Amino acid sequence: MPLIFWLVPFSAALALLFAWIFFRQMMQHDEGTEKMRKIAEHVRKGAGAYLRQQYKVVIVVFLIITVIFSILAYGLGVQNPWVPFAFISGGFFSGLAGFFGMKAATFASARVANACRTSLNSGLRLAFRSGAVMGLVVVGLVLVDISLWFIALNIFIPETADGYKLMTITAVMLTFGMGASTQALFARVGGGIYTKAADVGADLVGKIEAGIPEDDPRNPATIADNVGDNVGDVAGMGADLFESFAASILATALLGAAAFIGHGLDMQTNAVIAPMLIAAVGTLLSIAGVFMVKTKEGATQKQLLHSLGFGVNISAVLIVICSFLILYFLGLPNYVGIWGSIVIGLLAGIGIGQSTEYFTASAYSPTRKIAEASKTGPATVIIAGTGTGLISAAVPLGIIVIAITLAYSFATGFSFHVENLNFGLYGIGVAAVGMLSTLGITLATDAYGPIADNAGGNAEMCGLGAEVRSRTDALDALGNTTAATGKGFAIGSAALTALALLASYFEEVRMMYVKFLDMPNELINGVPAIEAAFIDFVYHFEIHLMNPKVIVGIFLGVMAVFLFSGMTMNAVGRAAQKMVDEVRCQFQTIEGILTGEVEPDYARCVEISTKGAQKEMMWPSLVALFIPVIVGLVFGVAGITGLLIGTISSGFALAIFMANAGGAWDNAKKYVEEGNFGGKGSENHKATVIGDTVGDPFKDTSGPSLNILIKLMVMASVVTVGVAVSYSLF
Amino acid sequence: MPLIFWLVPFSAALALLFAWIFFRQMMQHDEGTEKMRKIAEHVRKGAGAYLRQQYKVVIVVFLIITVIFSILAYGLGVQNPWVPFAFISGGFFSGLAGFFGMKAATFASARVANACRTSLNSGLRLAFRSGAVMGLVVVGLVLVDISLWFIALNIFIPETADGYKLMTITAVMLTFGMGASTQALFARVGGGIYTKAADVGADLVGKIEAGIPEDDPRNPATIADNVGDNVGDVAGMGADLFESFAASILATALLGAAAFIGHGLDMQTNAVIAPMLIAAVGTLLSIAGVFMVKTKEGATQKQLLHSLGFGVNISAVLIVICSFLILYFLGLPNYVGIWGSIVIGLLAGIGIGQSTEYFTASAYSPTRKIAEASKTGPATVIIAGTGTGLISAAVPLGIIVIAITLAYSFATGFSFHVENLNFGLYGIGVAAVGMLSTLGITLATDAYGPIADNAGGNAEMCGLGAEVRSRTDALDALGNTTAATGKGFAIGSAALTALALLASYFEEVRMMYVKFLDMPNELINGVPAIEAAFIDFVYHFEIHLMNPKVIVGIFLGVMAVFLFSGMTMNAVGRAAQKMVDEVRCQFQTIEGILTGEVEPDYARCVEISTKGAQKEMMWPSLVALFIPVIVGLVFGVAGITGLLIGTISSGFALAIFMANAGGAWDNAKKYVEEGNFGGKGSENHKATVIGDTVGDPFKDTSGPSLNILIKLMVMASVVTVGVAVSYSLF
Repeated sequence: MPLIFWLVPFSAALALLFAWIFFRQMMQHDEGTEKMRKIAEHVRKGAGAYLRQQYKVVIVVFLIITVIFSILAYGLGVQNPWVPFAFISGGFFSGLAGFFGMKAATFASARVANACRTSLNSGLRLAFRSGAVMGLVVVGLVLVDISLWFIALNIFIPETADGYKLMTITAVMLTFGMGASTQALFARVGGGIYTKAADVGADLVGKIEAGIPEDDPRNPATIADNVGDNVGDVAGMGADLFESFAASILATALLGAAAFIGHGLDMQTNAVIAPMLIAAVGTLLSIAGVFMVKTKEGATQKQLLHSLGFGVNISAVLIVICSFLILYFLGLPNYVGIWGSIVIGLLAGIGIGQSTEYFTASAYSPTRKIAEASKTGPATVIIAGTGTGLISAAVPLGIIVIAITLAYSFATGFSFHVENLNFGLYGIGVAAVGMLSTLGITLATDAYGPIADNAGGNAEMCGLGAEVRSRTDALDALGNTTAATGKGFAIGSAALTALALLASYFEEVRMMYVKFLDMPNELINGVPAIEAAFIDFVYHFEIHLMNPKVIVGIFLGVMAVFLFSGMTMNAVGRAAQKMVDEVRCQFQTIEGILTGEVEPDYARCVEISTKGAQKEMMWPSLVALFIPVIVGLVFGVAGITGLLIGTISSGFALAIFMANAGGAWDNAKKYVEEGNFGGKGSENHKATVIGDTVGDPFKDTSGPSLNILIKLMVMASVVTVGVAVSYSLF
Repeated sequence: MPLIFWLVPFSAALALLFAWIFFRQMMQHDEGTEKMRKIAEHVRKGAGAYLRQQYKVVIVVFLIITVIFSILAYGLGVQNPWVPFAFISGGFFSGLAGFFGMKAATFASARVANACRTSLNSGLRLAFRSGAVMGLVVVGLVLVDISLWFIALNIFIPETADGYKLMTITAVMLTFGMGASTQALFARVGGGIYTKAADVGADLVGKIEAGIPEDDPRNPATIADNVGDNVGDVAGMGADLFESFAASILATALLGAAAFIGHGLDMQTNAVIAPMLIAAVGTLLSIAGVFMVKTKEGATQKQLLHSLGFGVNISAVLIVICSFLILYFLGLPNYVGIWGSIVIGLLAGIGIGQSTEYFTASAYSPTRKIAEASKTGPATVIIAGTGTGLISAAVPLGIIVIAITLAYSFATGFSFHVENLNFGLYGIGVAAVGMLSTLGITLATDAYGPIADNAGGNAEMCGLGAEVRSRTDALDALGNTTAATGKGFAIGSAALTALALLASYFEEVRMMYVKFLDMPNELINGVPAIEAAFIDFVYHFEIHLMNPKVIVGIFLGVMAVFLFSGMTMNAVGRAAQKMVDEVRCQFQTIEGILTGEVEPDYARCVEISTKGAQKEMMWPSLVALFIPVIVGLVFGVAGITGLLIGTISSGFALAIFMANAGGAWDNAKKYVEEGNFGGKGSENHKATVIGDTVGDPFKDTSGPSLNILIKLMVMASVVTVGVAVSYSLF
């Protein structure tokens, strides 16, 4: 183990330390009035109840999958014996990160509202640092898990001369990502259904039927709505990016082990730890970045955005410099090219964020045109949003295409020859790591959003003064902007991570094949045997496009995407309906709710949303978990590879379409509310409100859930690779 | 040329003869009152004006492409010298079919309305036989063009011993499909934008602002709306299926020539003419089927549907028997398996139609649930329709997956070995031909819809009696059902045709490669050289899934689909806006319109829709035509193959989603209008009307346009294959 590796556990510890410090600092702030404390307590309890219920389901699912993995590992011998444990650890740490992040967020909201009574700056800093708890816990725990496993497996797995030791280690560690993926499935899909069922349900009865404003404490579903922000946007987003962060590092480690096999153990080790080190340094820079976020009193929206952006950007610039130094220090051949791939990944992340902003912010023409379409009613608002959303998907697709091409080309020195393929795939992995390297601070800005939102809700419900409200409004508006770009970033990084995972799937199959041939790691005509076996390999598994199994796989991948997103979309509709029924029932049976004399039964609504979400996510989850296994069993490796690329490409496009259409409808409504095209209360406004409601499940349920689908399906294929290779039907 | 081949020109002649007879018979009917004649005259003139304008643009585009093809053929020598002529002939015959079909439809509408004054049966028969003019002209002209070229090329292209003559002939003939594809692009995309711009524009001002009913002669856009039905649903649908019919036959002929190379010239010829013969016999059976459609007076909706279905089904059953006899007679090896592939294609077509009906008809729960969602407003109607539409795409995708797998397996005797690949691809082609074999009568039922719709419009505008109205309503309702299943069939057959085209793309590249190697057609270790070259071939072009160019191509394919459908969606919005402005202007400036004293300026609205459609289709057309060429130049054959499979798979899914969501919204509205969930005029009804308007561009513009995109992109790649092979950048 080279000395520099210890930077990884060190930065993990530092991230967790600062998370703890920020949490302690936040807890020392006052929660404000009795009422503020009480409302926050309700939300906290609701969020806790949701998490407990979710973890119950998750534990059962984890038990089942662990049993299956144990049979595969110990019974059939098609999996490494460490796999079940790595799987569990991934799930455990991801769950822990969600737990801490949510705790921090729900403790923070009233305190942020209270801090806004003092000044805007103290509100911003408190909200942002509470968000940083989530960001740092996520990256810290990922790096803890990676460090522990890498150290342990290096000790326990016996040395071999041919470089297979590191292949085995990285392959086992990748299954830790499967645990994170499964946890993320429940957090993101369940959380997504929860939050929109509560939101849509609360709006439909409260705003429309009873005519009471949003966030009104008389609405029984209002606490569930606030819980939903935490459940969906904090815990769900956190689990999603926990997985991307872990999977991109681990996949790249495996790609490094495969690419540098035969280059000597030291070089191979350096290639494996390179992504870990970049992530570690990115984490240290994220901590530094968090300290740079501050603002002056009376700051404009633009200044607020600038102060957040300053922290994020400085981290990004520094990681560009630091990663060059790391690669230089590690002495990888073509380190300049690999560094180029990292930079490409970072730039792609920024590009996707920019394109998201262009298509969803009311400062630009696409969203304004959607708002203008309200002049001819809600139907044209929906048509315009759909058209713009579809077109908007083309830009990030184009960015990813350019990023893949360049990352691959840089890492191979612009050669598309088969013998350089491994380096190219490593380049794609490294690009994903680059994009996610400063996740600590990026995720802090994401988690900041729902905290500011809840602080605003708390201030509203407790009737705090106009000045305080204007401050929380400013923070909230900022949160909406970061949420939109954050969503684009989450999808983009999911796509790049999924591609890195797909590449590692190829490498794993190839290793199995080479082992199966029992080929020595010698040079044949100057080419390592493993390279020579490449042509045979593609032939053996028929992963070429003339093979109908590949074509069929691609169609099935697209099918999985449409089925999954349709299911999550309908799930929101059904779960919201249950919420509507409950709220109506409470209004009718509990007297004094509407006059404010009696407190409604908030807990019941939380329970309904919780149960609805858990029940509704069953079918989509089964689609995500079982389709790859079934396709593998029927159509083998060829079918699976087709399936995965079909899922990743179409899932990415559909996710962007949904996120951007939803974001644009949301902001078109806000644009009208700002007084354009008739302003609040006009018929045009009503038309955009309909667009906004349609957009809710688009941008907060179905869209983000697709991030999980594309990663999980590749993960499930990677982990069960031995099954497809050994037992496929055709 | 075997004697049996002459069945093809014979059935072509017979189809055209009967089309002429049906047309003459229809023309002998009376057009009814003066007013009926006048209205029909307006629509006819509008349709003619549109066609003239479109043909002008088409001629320019054809000239440009012909020049490019001539340079490629005569200048650079990367194309066969016959290609430019084949291209032009395809465009010419497709345009001719559209012209005759539209003539028949626009002459028929008033006559059908008038016939309904006598009896339902005479109305049905007249409408259906007028639709049959379109159906028979399309299949007849396709078969004429195929016959002419096959005979001519057999004479002019010199005999070779190695079987390349038929490869060359079929490759040249396939470019006739490119002409049909380009024509279809303009007819389907332009027609789709036209019809919905007019429809949405007419509804928004007429129904909502001025409060006058649909099809009211006081609305200046009402004629444009009726023209749109003909332009979009008759000419557009006809050109779409003209292309599918031609391309499936021609691609399969090429696949047959490739699969049976080295099996002797006679056998190879039989494999080439097999798809032509099946189409020819299917055409004869279609003519027979048309004669079986009749109904009794006072028939219920179900009986009407049954009488249409009887003609279609009897043709389908007979083609199953006849195609077995043809294959037996031709003596192809494994003719039972190939016959199985034909049957699979037919069954897949039926299956997709059934699934379309299930997801869009108000008799089933999906559409009823969308209608029920109206209880909580328009937003939940849109959400439910989107969810259902997305899920509904999974079923046809599954059917296509099963169809490909079985068609391939039957044709190869359930072997997935590389040496049988050619036969498998031939099986997929044959399945597409099977699905489309009875197009003559299927298309008749499709074209029947808009004729009945226009007859209803005519009756409404002319204030015919209640009994007549109820008869035209019955015919119209039937037309809606056939239109929905017809859309599913058009998409399904487009997907299968595109896959057959993709297979023929592979074969063309392979032939080029084999020629390039200058390999003799000998046996090497008992395997023909061409088979032995297969492994090299995949390697040479790197069409395997580990190649980043393939992955990038797939992403670009998905990108093209989203970009194209977003563009067509927004095009409708913009063109409709122009129509709204014009109608508003006429209401304000021309006095006496609303009182019915002065006739509005119908021609102006027709012109606006025409110009709007022509202008708006420019960008989507450029996407469809240039993306494959650019990708070919940059990423070569590997990039193109990825591009095509990405486009076909995601385009198919998105097309089904849009068509089914649109159809379901339409019928959910009708279900409420039938008195459910509050009935006509209720708030729930208004919510479903919004859903219906959103669905208009989904089901009639963007969805069907994707049929064209997926076929045209493959076609453009096939035709420019020499360019990608010779000049690609990477």
